Amino acid sequence: MLEYRSEELSEDQLAREREVKGGLAQSTRELVDAVIRSTIDDEELGEISTQIETLTARLRTSQIEGSFGVALSGDEVRNHGNAVVGLRNAIAPPLEVLKTDEGRAWADFTLGAAYEGPPGLVHGGVSALLLDQVFGEAAAAGGSPGMTGTLTLRYRRGTPLGNLHAEARIDRVEGVKTFVTGFIGDADGPTVEAEGIFILPKWARDLFEPKPFE
Amino acid sequence: MLEYRSEELSEDQLAREREVKGGLAQSTRELVDAVIRSTIDDEELGEISTQIETLTARLRTSQIEGSFGVALSGDEVRNHGNAVVGLRNAIAPPLEVLKTDEGRAWADFTLGAAYEGPPGLVHGGVSALLLDQVFGEAAAAGGSPGMTGTLTLRYRRGTPLGNLHAEARIDRVEGVKTFVTGFIGDADGPTVEAEGIFILPKWARDLFEPKPFE
Repeated sequence: MLEYRSEELSEDQLAREREVKGGLAQSTRELVDAVIRSTIDDEELGEISTQIETLTARLRTSQIEGSFGVALSGDEVRNHGNAVVGLRNAIAPPLEVLKTDEGRAWADFTLGAAYEGPPGLVHGGVSALLLDQVFGEAAAAGGSPGMTGTLTLRYRRGTPLGNLHAEARIDRVEGVKTFVTGFIGDADGPTVEAEGIFILPKWARDLFEPKPFE
Repeated sequence: MLEYRSEELSEDQLAREREVKGGLAQSTRELVDAVIRSTIDDEELGEISTQIETLTARLRTSQIEGSFGVALSGDEVRNHGNAVVGLRNAIAPPLEVLKTDEGRAWADFTLGAAYEGPPGLVHGGVSALLLDQVFGEAAAAGGSPGMTGTLTLRYRRGTPLGNLHAEARIDRVEGVKTFVTGFIGDADGPTVEAEGIFILPKWARDLFEPKPFE
């Protein structure tokens, strides 16, 4: 069973967290990009490594054990460590996923050098990573949350780095299984199409009463 | 058609690149982890953001346009920007993928806070991301390289953060299609099983003569 901790935070505290901790992660995303692309000389790269290590040591003077987990604060799900949407995770683009309670979810975002696979293209696995998140959010938004059971991806053409769009919707619900379809693509349309089945874990079946999906 | 550039580098230059540029990315990976987990006060977090921005500006005084791409240097494929295996990419764990020319590939690795989805578990999409890379490397190692055509993932149970293993092998080759199977898992066995079809792109069919796979 998964542990979600509860943390009461005021609106002011939540806003300050977005500004300060979100800002730190955004600075780190820019650093990740620059580390890949820089052509400055080795000596200076070595100096910068040393300075990064100093900053990391300062951050680690006080830190949580293990991973961030998920905190529930009023209506807000603070999954700030999440690899796709996490406010504090520099690996996450992060996606800002919009959704409706009819079980639709979508996001517009830009992927740069850090998400590359083949030259100039998004790594095929990155498309899978992002779709898994958007699909799961569609299932949850429609009242049928679940863990990924299966995910099937069909790659139609290469996904160029740059401005992209992903979307998902619940196709149908059968008991504890929620069937989701969607795609990722660019201005010319879908590049990767997918289907997923999300399954409400046994331990959660008393907590969530799946609502009928029309 | 994808562009792979050719860059002649000496053994010494390659070793120095691994040390200096690989070292910088490794420092940055540690920073990414600390940014998620730190509990130091907001004022100091703000100072650290500012210092990171200064380092990023220094790195950007000279940088390549766009993404890193893939450089061929003798026998070495320098895909250092790759989101899964890239030496210079702090998003990549990075996986060190071992392989045989019979079309097998595997990796042992550790995933921490930056790869989280549900509390304490690897993001389901991260498993897909890593498997896509290991599967593609198995196909290529067996002499049947290709771009991901389809990828089907079955999630058997949650994948805990920590020490993990992924492996893949070519199941069969049918013309330009290479069928690969494999899994990611922990010490207790597979957590996510998958099948993939990798397809040699039309533009590459004159470059690669697929060898028969026994």
